[in-house]
Formats: sequence, structure tokens, C-alpha cells
Amino acid sequence: MTQKNETSVTVLGLGRMGQALAGAFLKAGHPTTVWNRTAAKAERLVSEGARLAPTVGAALAASPLIIICLTDYPAVRELLDASENDLAGTTLINLTSGDSAQARATARWAEQRGARYLDGAIMAIPPAIGTAEAVILHSGPEADFAAHRPILDALGTVSYLGADHGLASLYDVAGLAMMWSVLNAWLHGTAMLRTAGVDAATFAPFAAQIAAGVAEWLPGYAEQIDRGSFPAEVSTLETDARAMAHLIEESEAVGVNAELPRLIKAMADRSIAAGHGAEQYPVLIEEFGTPR
Amino acid sequence: MTQKNETSVTVLGLGRMGQALAGAFLKAGHPTTVWNRTAAKAERLVSEGARLAPTVGAALAASPLIIICLTDYPAVRELLDASENDLAGTTLINLTSGDSAQARATARWAEQRGARYLDGAIMAIPPAIGTAEAVILHSGPEADFAAHRPILDALGTVSYLGADHGLASLYDVAGLAMMWSVLNAWLHGTAMLRTAGVDAATFAPFAAQIAAGVAEWLPGYAEQIDRGSFPAEVSTLETDARAMAHLIEESEAVGVNAELPRLIKAMADRSIAAGHGAEQYPVLIEEFGTPR
Ligand SMILES: NC(=O)c1ccc[n+]([C@@H]2O[C@H](COP(=O)([O-])OP(=O)(O)OC[C@H]3O[C@@H](n4cnc5c(N)ncnc54)[C@H](OP(=O)(O)O)[C@@H]3O)[C@@H](O)[C@H]2O)c1
Ligand SMILES: NC(=O)c1ccc[n+]([C@@H]2O[C@H](COP(=O)([O-])OP(=O)(O)OC[C@H]3O[C@@H](n4cnc5c(N)ncnc54)[C@H](OP(=O)(O)O)[C@@H]3O)[C@@H](O)[C@H]2O)c1
Repeated sequence: MTQKNETSVTVLGLGRMGQALAGAFLKAGHPTTVWNRTAAKAERLVSEGARLAPTVGAALAASPLIIICLTDYPAVRELLDASENDLAGTTLINLTSGDSAQARATARWAEQRGARYLDGAIMAIPPAIGTAEAVILHSGPEADFAAHRPILDALGTVSYLGADHGLASLYDVAGLAMMWSVLNAWLHGTAMLRTAGVDAATFAPFAAQIAAGVAEWLPGYAEQIDRGSFPAEVSTLETDARAMAHLIEESEAVGVNAELPRLIKAMADRSIAAGHGAEQYPVLIEEFGTPR
Repeated sequence: MTQKNETSVTVLGLGRMGQALAGAFLKAGHPTTVWNRTAAKAERLVSEGARLAPTVGAALAASPLIIICLTDYPAVRELLDASENDLAGTTLINLTSGDSAQARATARWAEQRGARYLDGAIMAIPPAIGTAEAVILHSGPEADFAAHRPILDALGTVSYLGADHGLASLYDVAGLAMMWSVLNAWLHGTAMLRTAGVDAATFAPFAAQIAAGVAEWLPGYAEQIDRGSFPAEVSTLETDARAMAHLIEESEAVGVNAELPRLIKAMADRSIAAGHGAEQYPVLIEEFGTPR
């Protein structure tokens, strides 16, 4: 349902994601200015009420809040460097995907131009934008997030991570690593069970229950990491490593890919070699924190 | 609370786990016979009401249900091969950890000896036995599981997986792979976030939420696998692979271990090379099912 809303916003970049973002702002009733290098991509949005800015400069001048969503950070910098706008009083929120170093460098650039700057990461696909399913992470000055949060709420479930502009992209890739890891462990188990004639749908609820159950342990294990002390309350790394050897042997015996089990064991073996065999699993943080 | 219970049971093997199993049967009021190679380990249980059998033969003859929990399968076979009991009418439930081939071979051996046989796997530590937290998996003839389920319930949350005796150990190691994968992805993310000064306790709830959220997708993705059709409803493997490259670059840039990200991308790259770049993630089942 369209509501009237006074706060205006500009969206720079109308790829699949930029169009979804602008569409969500329009739907929430915000006066929305749009700009795209290829102007034709604005047509549908204009028919829904968006104002098409003729130049980047006009788009930047149209609203106190500018949402940027281009292919990558070099495109963002190329575009903004070419503009000559006075950005004092303007807040830029860059939702383009990139790494933490790019986010921090762009924040420094924005500061030099007198703009306020938040970096963001979108953990959602375009059709989810505007629903609670769309998780959008932000980092940078908390006051700037707080000031614009009401309008950002139109995009989905928005959250604030901290003042370091690099945090949004770090959480983003860390979250993706978790996603792929759950999927990969499930695929590995599914491949093993299929050798015994068990279909994927039969195994999935079991795998889902384990993943959700282990997720509940993380806050407790995190305390061990923050204290830097890993007493074996549940089991020792050495006991785990023996079970990892069974996982590798079983994977090889039933004829599935054993690379994931081998990586799991290699991490534990190194930690045991470093003298941590009698400690508990989270002591592996030392291995994960060592470049390799 | 101790209840009176008529059904008797024998526990062979009183290591840390066997003692916990026998203790749970006693607590539930079952007349419990125990035997261990090193008899001294029975002392506490005997003081709690267990009957210590003088020989394996006497232990096997004492109850219609025999629970076995030794170090490994060779120990189980060594012990049982030495006995000369008539096992007709006796049900053996072997909760010793092992692989699916050992479970199936032991089932064939038991059949030749005229015994009924269920294989099991304990997904719990000894102190959890007797509580709902202790998950104990069983496979073998369903009628035998059904017949003994009331007494097995004393041990924890028991479940039946199917007639193939190898299923309990396959589900067991598949579950462990899921556990280690969730922990590893969380440790990887924690290592990355620590480079930005974020402590483990701050990051843990975010990681937990993603793991639990992705777990909910598994039944839907399983349908794609069982149909053998992987339309890109959410995103394509090629889009995923680009984000995986970002994960590797970020891991290297902040100076953490990048082996897990590289394995994640290697699996996807192979599937893309095999022509699946426009399909959805679960198409990777083909890579996970290929020995390597
Ligand atoms: N799509 C998703 O599922 C998804 C999910 C999460 C995050 N993201 C992120 O969102 C961002 C945008 O993704 P998308 O799916 O919208 O990509 P897209 O459809 O390929 O659109 C890319 C946009 O960037 C513009 N652009 C590229 N180079 C430019 C330059 N040098 N100057 C000016 N404009 C330039 C394009 O303009 P033209 O139209 O003129 O080419 C277009 O508007 C990416 O960082 C992506 O990683 C996307
Ligand atoms: N402990 C856990 O957290 C845990 C969790 C899940 C599954 N499990 C599984 O449960 C099983 C037992 O584990 P546990 O922790 O109880 O091990 P444990 O404390 O080392 O006990 C091993 C038991 O096996 C007996 N044994 C070994 N070789 C034997 C032989 N040749 N003949 C007769 N008895 C023999 C030992 O007898 P003696 O006392 O005479 O040496 C002892 O009773 C293992 O398969 C383990 O993987 C354990």
C-alpha cells in the first residue's frame, strides 16, 4: 500500500538491484529521484512516479540522501569523481558490493568531499527488497544511520554494525561463507546417504536440525574465544580428530568427494600439532586466524 | 526418579559411554546386567543395583536385549566370536562407533549366529545420556527397533532410520560433518571480524542466525536434488562464484586462513566448468558425489 511520505531520496544506478531499491522507496511513498548511465532503465520507475535526473549532478543535488548501487567500487568512484557537486550536508549510502578496504577508502574520499558516508551490504536478491526477508547491513557513523533509518526501513530488515566502514562487507562475506558451508556439509551428507539409497528429502530435516542446533552453541563457544581459554567441557580436539578420520574413511569407502572432510581434519591436525589436542574445538580460531 | 520396570537388559563394555548407558537403564528401573573386560569398572554400577556377570557368556544369557559399547568393531567381533552362546531370541544393539561397512558386516555375522541385530550411533557425550539431549540413531529391522524402543527410550532421544544397518553410522558422520562445517565457517568469520576489532561474542549471533536460516532452505533444495533439476530460482552458480572470489580476496587481504573459501570456490568452479553455471547451488551434488 502506498503511503505519503515527505523524505526524499535519490538512487544512483538502476541495474536489477538499483531498480528494486528505487521501487521500494516509491512504494513507501518517498519522493524518489533516479539516475542511470543507461537512461532507458528508468522508464518503469518513472511510470511509477520516480523523477529522472538528467545528470549525475542533478541527481546528487535533488535529495539529502543518496543511495548508490553500481557494479563495483571502481564504477562508484569513477562516477562520483566526475561530479563537481558540493556534498556538504549530503549523506551517501553505498550499497554496492565490495571489500572492507574499498569501503574504508571510499569513506575517506567522501570525508574529503565533505559528505557523510555509510557503507552497506545487501544480503538479498532484488525480488526480496521491500520485504522483511531482505537483510541490509550498514556501517559508519551511528548518528548518520539513525538519522536515515526511517527511510532505510522501506528496503527490508536493516541493521547497524558499527563505526568502522569496513564492517558491512566483512559481515557480508562472513555470512556468505556460513551459507555455503551449511549447504556444502549438507550436500556432502546427501551424497553419502544417496549411496545407501536415501533420498535428499529424507536426509534434509536431519541435517537442518543439526545445523540449527549447532548454531545455538556459537554464543557459548564465543566466550571461550574472547577469554582465550578453551577447556574441554564437551570433548577434546583429539577425540574430534579421530571422528574426522572416520568421516574421511567413510567418504572414501562409499565413493564420494572427501575434500571437505580432509580440510576439516587438516585444520584440527595442525592445531593438535601446535599442542592443543586436549583443548576444545574453538581453539581452532588460532588456525583460522593464520594466513595460509 | 527411579521407577520399577520389568524389562531386563545387559550392557557389554563399561568404558565412559557404557557406564553412562548402564546407569541410565538402572535409573529407569530396568534390571541391568553388566560385563566389562576390566571388572573393576563395574563397581559403581553394582553399588547402584547392577548385577555383574562373571563371564561374557553369562552376560549374554542374562537378558533378551544386549547393548554393546566397546572401543571399535574389531573389539566387538573379538569378544562375540569368543562366546559360544545360542543367540536365537537375543537382540544385539551395537552402539559402538564404526563405519557403514562394519555395521553391515556385523549384521550378517549376527544373522549367521541366529541373533537379531540393530546397529546404532550415539551423537552425545556420556553426561548427556539419559536426557533428551542425547540423540541415538538406530538402523536395522524396524520390528526389532519397535520391540525394544520402550527400554531404549531410557537413553535419550532415540530414532529409527531404516532397514539398512549402515544408516546409523552414515547419518552419524554426516551429522558430524555438518557440525564441524558450521563451527568452521563461524571460526572463519570470527577470525575475519577480529581483524576489525569485533569480538567473537558480537559476531556469534549473526553467524547463528544465518546458519539457522539456511538450514530452513534444505528441504526445498532437497526437492531439486531428488528431481535432478536445478532452475536458478534464487541465483546462479556463476553469480555465487563471483561472490566466492570476493570472500577469498577479503580473507587474503585481512590476513586470515583462506583454505575454506578456496575449497568452496573450487567446488563451484568445477561445476561451472562442467556446464552448470546457469543453474542453482544444489547442482553441486554432482561434484560432492564424485570421488576425489
Ligand atoms: N542482483 C543481486 O542479486 C544482488 C544481490 C546483492 C548485492 N548485489 C550488488 O548490487 C550491486 C548492483 O548489482 P545489480 O544486480 O543491480 O547489477 P547490474 O544489474 O549489472 O547493474 C549494474 C549497474 O551499475 C551501473 N554501472 C556499471 N558501471 C558503471 C559506470 N562506470 N558508471 C556508471 N554506472 C555504472 C550499470 O549502469 P548501466 O545500466 O548503464 O550498465 C547498472 O546500473 C552489485 O555490487 C551487486 O554485487 C546484487
Ligand atoms: N565417550 C564419548 O564421548 C562417546 C561419544 C559418542 C560415541 N562414543 C563411542 O562409544 C564407544 C565407547 O566409547 P567410550 O568413551 O566408552 O570408550 P572407552 O572409555 O575407551 O571404553 C572402551 C571400552 O571398550 C572395552 N574394550 C576395548 N577393547 C576391548 C576388547 N578387545 N575386548 C573387550 N572389551 C574391550 C574397554 O574395556 P576395558 O575397560 O577393559 O579397557 C572399555 O569398556 C566408542 O565406539 C566411542 O566412539 C563415545
